[in-house]
Amino acid sequence: MNDFLSEKAKKLTPYVGGLQPREDGWIKLNTNENMYPPSPKMTEALNVADFSRLRLYPDGDSAILASAIADVLGVKKENIFCGNSSDEVLALAYQAFYTGKSNVISPDVSYGFYPVWGEMYDVGLSFAPVRDDFSIDTDDYKNSNGVIIANPNAPTSLALGLSCIEKIVANNPNGVILIDEAYIDFAQVESAVSLLDKYENLLVVRTFSKSHSMAGLRVGFAVGSPALIDGLRRVRDAFNTYPLDMLAQIAATAAFSDVAYTKDVTAKIIKTREKTIAALREAGVNVLDSQANFIFMECADAEALYKFLYENKILVRYWKIPRIKNFLRVSIGTDENMEVVVQCVNRFWSAEQTKHL
Amino acid sequence: MNDFLSEKAKKLTPYVGGLQPREDGWIKLNTNENMYPPSPKMTEALNVADFSRLRLYPDGDSAILASAIADVLGVKKENIFCGNSSDEVLALAYQAFYTGKSNVISPDVSYGFYPVWGEMYDVGLSFAPVRDDFSIDTDDYKNSNGVIIANPNAPTSLALGLSCIEKIVANNPNGVILIDEAYIDFAQVESAVSLLDKYENLLVVRTFSKSHSMAGLRVGFAVGSPALIDGLRRVRDAFNTYPLDMLAQIAATAAFSDVAYTKDVTAKIIKTREKTIAALREAGVNVLDSQANFIFMECADAEALYKFLYENKILVRYWKIPRIKNFLRVSIGTDENMEVVVQCVNRFWSAEQTKHL
Repeated sequence: MNDFLSEKAKKLTPYVGGLQPREDGWIKLNTNENMYPPSPKMTEALNVADFSRLRLYPDGDSAILASAIADVLGVKKENIFCGNSSDEVLALAYQAFYTGKSNVISPDVSYGFYPVWGEMYDVGLSFAPVRDDFSIDTDDYKNSNGVIIANPNAPTSLALGLSCIEKIVANNPNGVILIDEAYIDFAQVESAVSLLDKYENLLVVRTFSKSHSMAGLRVGFAVGSPALIDGLRRVRDAFNTYPLDMLAQIAATAAFSDVAYTKDVTAKIIKTREKTIAALREAGVNVLDSQANFIFMECADAEALYKFLYENKILVRYWKIPRIKNFLRVSIGTDENMEVVVQCVNRFWSAEQTKHL
Repeated sequence: MNDFLSEKAKKLTPYVGGLQPREDGWIKLNTNENMYPPSPKMTEALNVADFSRLRLYPDGDSAILASAIADVLGVKKENIFCGNSSDEVLALAYQAFYTGKSNVISPDVSYGFYPVWGEMYDVGLSFAPVRDDFSIDTDDYKNSNGVIIANPNAPTSLALGLSCIEKIVANNPNGVILIDEAYIDFAQVESAVSLLDKYENLLVVRTFSKSHSMAGLRVGFAVGSPALIDGLRRVRDAFNTYPLDMLAQIAATAAFSDVAYTKDVTAKIIKTREKTIAALREAGVNVLDSQANFIFMECADAEALYKFLYENKILVRYWKIPRIKNFLRVSIGTDENMEVVVQCVNRFWSAEQTKHL
């Protein structure tokens, strides 16, 4: 081990994301990227941007972007905090609201970064087991110092309805309830943003990486009461006062305002998702009902299926960890991509059955 | 105070940067931005960038940018770590190498973010007083658990020669020596990058915000031994795996490779700086020898001069804190900008002298 590292850095278990191959030829369904390009309005905004202004620092508060987001969501710009990806916003939220606290509850099956930040920022996370069907039991979330839930959840693809989220917020009045809505635009359930008027302790986090096709630009934001937004600003200004660059602000402002385009793209992805689920189920595969831009499918030997898909140049996500080691998470690509996936799964399935004859 | 905040967040003293007015009409000399636009090669690279690729995650390691930087500096790409501004890189370095340690030495007059990160990331900083002339006494830096020095230093504008830096590195073999070279391209002294072959514990941090005119794009990097670069990666991957967006990577790659443009721009700024210093000294003002893109000038009533300049729509930087409360930091603008500054200072000076007649 590196002698110069701090004890803290030595002890860390860093997050490991999906593979990012450089070469072409892969069907890349492992990081829930969007198969459609960003809004043409975004491209237009970047095309007319004055690059000579890049000599100046950007607005640390991303005020124009915050206003655009607030307009679309029907809140005030004082309710919006923008950051360099929702991962950064989440990391700042941990430090603003949870550092040094225990009994911050999160599901045991969820986004792999949650426990990493817990370790990094000294948060005593307690993990509530999801049910056998991977659904969240709202009764597990009471009297805590905070709750962190992805809704829809990843990698399960399941979502809680608004009344369940409200029950959790109401049952945990002393902690910040962080609802990570990275995939909400692909869900049938309503966003928790509609609860913000009633609860000062609710923080909703969103990303431009999924429904807005902008993973490459690293833009995320939080929506919450001015008290919580001020908390986020406080820790930001003890870390990096200008986290979001000028081009990302310009691009995100245009993209978020193009509501029709986002609706159109997400509708296409939902259609492909439902078609894929139907085809896999027809082939006898157990696939969870998905409210996200990915599916979670069962396979007795998921690792073997992962490898088989990999050999066929299809990248999906597999975690060799308890509870989900018999599942694969597959991002929704184009219709053509998903037909190839279904064919491959069928071929794998037939080969497996032949083995057992 | 906000009830939801963590104790840590409550106790923070966030960094306060220079004012960033939105409206035009200011001569903005308060955040050391570059008055010249970024390289035309940068503009060209952004103009031909394929914005549809923004749907994909960027390369978390910024490998192409790291290679371009390595080529220009004559090191290997394994020696380079890129981040979302040098502030982010510095914040990660604190966590990787200093968290939980005491006796990490830094000058008492330096970049205002250093003590903020110390508080944020639990680093026991010990501040070595600079001499009365603001120079750093290298004998103050021995047997520490780390050293953090800006070279050239801000806001003093003074720089240490390479032999002084080497002495400090050699005298502190057990800690990481972090040399923040934000302003090195404006200096006569040699960069500490040339020492990297000899010292595994040396980390040099640079920014694109000053000599590369790209404050708006938030790009910074560290140069160091693979051991130190791995340490930075470790903490990055427990925070935000893709810190630098795709457009920032593309733009920075083109800009850093355009060495001739950077040389030309910095030469112009140095020329303006020297002319400004000469004119101010001729007017009887004490100005330190500057090796940066700003000057540090003395004034018995610096706060009054700050206000006078402000009323004349000139923004400079003033800190009402011990040791430097009789000084102003003034960024170098265009020749025209600086002529207005000199005129204003002369008018202020005459008015002051008239008062005492």
